[in-house]
Amino acid sequence: MTDYAAPLADMRFALTEIAGLPEIAALPGCEQATPDLVDAVLEEAGKLAGGVLAPLNQIGDQQGSRLENGVVRTPTGFKDAYARYVEGGWNALPFAAEHGGQGLPVALSTAVLEMWNSANMGFALCPLLNVGAVEALEAHGSEEQKRLYLAKLVSGEWTGTMNLTEPQAGSDVGALRTRAIRDGDHYRITGQKIFITYGEHDMAENIVHLVLARLPDAPPGTRGISLFLVPKFLVNADGSLGPRNDVCCVSLEHKLGIHASPTCVLAYGDNGGAIGTLIGEENRGMECMFTMMNSARLNVGLQGVAIAERAYQQARDFARQRVQGRPVTANAPGAYPIIHHPDIRRMLLLMRAQTEAMRALAYYTAGAIDWARRDPSGERRVAEQRRVDLLIPVVKAWCTDLGVEIASLGVQIHGGMGFIEETGAAQHLRDARIAPIYEGTNGIQANDLLGRKLLRDGGMAARDLVAEMRGIAPQLTSSSSDDIDALHGPLDAGIDAVVAAVDWMVATGEADAPRALAGAVPFLKLMGVVTGGWLMTRGAVAAQRRLQSGEGDAAFLKAKLLTARFFAEHVVAMAPSLLPAVTGGATVMGFDLDQF
Amino acid sequence: MTDYAAPLADMRFALTEIAGLPEIAALPGCEQATPDLVDAVLEEAGKLAGGVLAPLNQIGDQQGSRLENGVVRTPTGFKDAYARYVEGGWNALPFAAEHGGQGLPVALSTAVLEMWNSANMGFALCPLLNVGAVEALEAHGSEEQKRLYLAKLVSGEWTGTMNLTEPQAGSDVGALRTRAIRDGDHYRITGQKIFITYGEHDMAENIVHLVLARLPDAPPGTRGISLFLVPKFLVNADGSLGPRNDVCCVSLEHKLGIHASPTCVLAYGDNGGAIGTLIGEENRGMECMFTMMNSARLNVGLQGVAIAERAYQQARDFARQRVQGRPVTANAPGAYPIIHHPDIRRMLLLMRAQTEAMRALAYYTAGAIDWARRDPSGERRVAEQRRVDLLIPVVKAWCTDLGVEIASLGVQIHGGMGFIEETGAAQHLRDARIAPIYEGTNGIQANDLLGRKLLRDGGMAARDLVAEMRGIAPQLTSSSSDDIDALHGPLDAGIDAVVAAVDWMVATGEADAPRALAGAVPFLKLMGVVTGGWLMTRGAVAAQRRLQSGEGDAAFLKAKLLTARFFAEHVVAMAPSLLPAVTGGATVMGFDLDQF
Repeated sequence: MTDYAAPLADMRFALTEIAGLPEIAALPGCEQATPDLVDAVLEEAGKLAGGVLAPLNQIGDQQGSRLENGVVRTPTGFKDAYARYVEGGWNALPFAAEHGGQGLPVALSTAVLEMWNSANMGFALCPLLNVGAVEALEAHGSEEQKRLYLAKLVSGEWTGTMNLTEPQAGSDVGALRTRAIRDGDHYRITGQKIFITYGEHDMAENIVHLVLARLPDAPPGTRGISLFLVPKFLVNADGSLGPRNDVCCVSLEHKLGIHASPTCVLAYGDNGGAIGTLIGEENRGMECMFTMMNSARLNVGLQGVAIAERAYQQARDFARQRVQGRPVTANAPGAYPIIHHPDIRRMLLLMRAQTEAMRALAYYTAGAIDWARRDPSGERRVAEQRRVDLLIPVVKAWCTDLGVEIASLGVQIHGGMGFIEETGAAQHLRDARIAPIYEGTNGIQANDLLGRKLLRDGGMAARDLVAEMRGIAPQLTSSSSDDIDALHGPLDAGIDAVVAAVDWMVATGEADAPRALAGAVPFLKLMGVVTGGWLMTRGAVAAQRRLQSGEGDAAFLKAKLLTARFFAEHVVAMAPSLLPAVTGGATVMGFDLDQF
Repeated sequence: MTDYAAPLADMRFALTEIAGLPEIAALPGCEQATPDLVDAVLEEAGKLAGGVLAPLNQIGDQQGSRLENGVVRTPTGFKDAYARYVEGGWNALPFAAEHGGQGLPVALSTAVLEMWNSANMGFALCPLLNVGAVEALEAHGSEEQKRLYLAKLVSGEWTGTMNLTEPQAGSDVGALRTRAIRDGDHYRITGQKIFITYGEHDMAENIVHLVLARLPDAPPGTRGISLFLVPKFLVNADGSLGPRNDVCCVSLEHKLGIHASPTCVLAYGDNGGAIGTLIGEENRGMECMFTMMNSARLNVGLQGVAIAERAYQQARDFARQRVQGRPVTANAPGAYPIIHHPDIRRMLLLMRAQTEAMRALAYYTAGAIDWARRDPSGERRVAEQRRVDLLIPVVKAWCTDLGVEIASLGVQIHGGMGFIEETGAAQHLRDARIAPIYEGTNGIQANDLLGRKLLRDGGMAARDLVAEMRGIAPQLTSSSSDDIDALHGPLDAGIDAVVAAVDWMVATGEADAPRALAGAVPFLKLMGVVTGGWLMTRGAVAAQRRLQSGEGDAAFLKAKLLTARFFAEHVVAMAPSLLPAVTGGATVMGFDLDQF
């Protein structure tokens, strides 16, 4: 009932038709991503995800990670699974070849990362956090730091963590108090960090903490924060492990979900100060953090896609097996699997269509990262980076909000069994619920979209996207397919709504920031719905083209057309109705605080 | 952080202005519901809910009920709390005076029931199930059954349960297999029932199971089901307790939420058959069940309201206390409580406005039950009953779906702390998740709305409601308030959408039932959104009237106006956009089952 099979057909379709992987593979430095290699990577990743990681998902939830005398024990099977994952070279997949990675396109590694998270989100968090550590060292590490740490982090023999949060410093990172004092060629770190994912565990021989802390003479706020590398075991000059550093896990959080993933309270400096080295320059720690923000947010958004896919597969399998009642469609008496009931089908399609739209958006954004890095034209690189920056908060927030909704639909399809923990449907809902919160709450994402991505360039990036979305119209009017014809009206109305919202936000944002900010989350949702609708429409056009040319699996392609139509009717159709919420900030800000 | 204070101001407002309690109190048989008594009941219930039941809510979640050697132990404090609840006469509140109840209006007892469920949903489920047993006995019990059982069930000294579900018979009750064999003046019951709420516990000295079972010569399906009364301890003719009956709890479910409420697997007849007596006539058990369906569904809908209120209060209190970052509204530097941030305010208002709209709908429907029972005019009684029947599935499904969404928003407002179980916000989400499932899944509710409530009378009840909703227009155009003026457009467009949906459903329902059924849930949501918007508009008009006459708390009334406006902008505005989903059944049914 809790099996997982990587949705290879839709992944390949989205990579090819939406992310443009074949064209990306022709970019300088991506040549190794041949069609054969891409197929092999997806197939083999699917086997590890479905065969090894997915069966541990419920065990991980039920056992959780446990703290015993300062040692964190991961659930049964996790250590072995991680070893297989490292041995298979999977941890190195997303990284640059110059540091021991495989140098494959981001679009492809994004599809693979979706699989790990579908299979076992509690497990996948460990490599997910590690990505941030590698990126920070690649971009800002000294040669010595790179020499000592990078290869081990890339291979996954060691794992990395991100240490930002303190009890008084969550969304407001600038309020952190952890101290760093210069001590010869290194620093001594003292303080307490909370919410540290895989801050302590038994799957790797060393853990490399990236810690935000404040120097004694640092300016207040975010301009006085520095980033330090603090290993669990000190590393000798020859790369061998030295003594234990002054950092320990003092407790684990008792959480709603992702039980397998140890969420640690880490104490630094109880015995004189943990030894750390500076990454980048003093007081420039926030800039280092920003360099890894895009991939971290993309990857958390991807968790929304991943958990939605897993919940969908489980609900679909249940709906095929659970016999209950005679549906109105049945000609013969007797009981039928509930997948025959119209409302069960509607719920499954709501799960599936939104999952495919989210996947399209996430892979599209990943592909844009490849172009922004690799395209020979500097102008194209700038334009693609602008698109990436615009869409990253949308991917993070829209996909994680939908991940929760879709997991909840999965519970509903199970009926009473969905509420029983053994079934496994409820775990997906509990696991999914963290993603709208961490890596910047979805409210923070909406603020980022509005402030940094829309207002800072006066709406240019958004209008570029609108122009490109408008460009699909001729392909819709010239189509002979009713299903494609049905997409046109909702998409057009949705784009009109985006234009109206962008104009309003650009006009209001500077003049009345609170009013604009009160509509930021509805604005982000509008962007997600319409961009998702555009990409589903692109997919439908491609499916129709393939159908007409007799290329590929006709049943899959017909389903793709109908899924796009369902998405237009059930999701894109709501876009214009979001405008009153986007522009309704006066009501929100007019409410007396004492009256809440 | 997990305090609860009954929202007396909004409860009184909804009872007075929406349910029409003052007018209901003038109906024959309701005379005792004087303003003073109503106030006293609300105040005292609020004290018990806030002071006794609410502090046990998290304990109940953490400990859960436990099965030890066939005995179910409820969490610490539950037994004492239940004793206080019974001693205070609270259990008798909703019942007719002739059976020892207090004979108060349903509207009032609905408000009180909301409090129990806000304070402690796991606790409140025990009396909630008991209501069904009392109603079944009142309507269908023999004189002997009434004499022996009714007074004890009304007082709460004994508790009642509903035994419908079996592993193969959930939504399809007709598939049940539990057997009943005639044995003199009683019956012997054998079989296994699952999902029996408070099927075994230690809070009362006897438990009265109402059990659906099948006689050997019964017709198949729902026409061959009979209802039996099967007590845990047999009751002697003098009312004293006799020997233990042949029914026992063999296991408890491990659930996502409502941990305090024991969800039992009950085994009947392991030692020769449990002794039961027939309620009503043989093979008419489903009819007996239908008599209690309206109040059971209203009360489960109310759980959605209740958990939303509790989640709102907790999120609001957290937002007032949690200091994090400098909001854009702040003039001075420093950190502020997060309630100052525009998006936190938006989320709080989304919780609050929808909670108030749900409360209005639930109390309105409860008031209509009073009129349907008590109005001297037979014509009015029929019309009110038609309104009740139409709205019951809307109350059940719309309020419980929103209960989940609102509890999830409560988690989001807490940020990272919301994902930590000790905070308590996550419990509300876990608890809320059952309500869209039990007492008929929300898909079943939508089928009921479409089939029994809309198509059976050709849309008459729905069109009566539309006509009454249209009737508010003159009060909106004549108002001098901008806030009321702003309600008019969205409400009008929403009612237009309801009309279009009703027309389409009536035209399609007979001709193409699968297509209509595929749109049943979006149709129900449309009905909830627009009816909720109408009642919020009625509330706004009343608030404006009171403000102009200088009557009542001006700050509360101004908030009421703004909350209605927020609801119009964020919720009612979406009504027309639901139409493509309501009418999009062809896409749903066109999807190939093999392609899921």
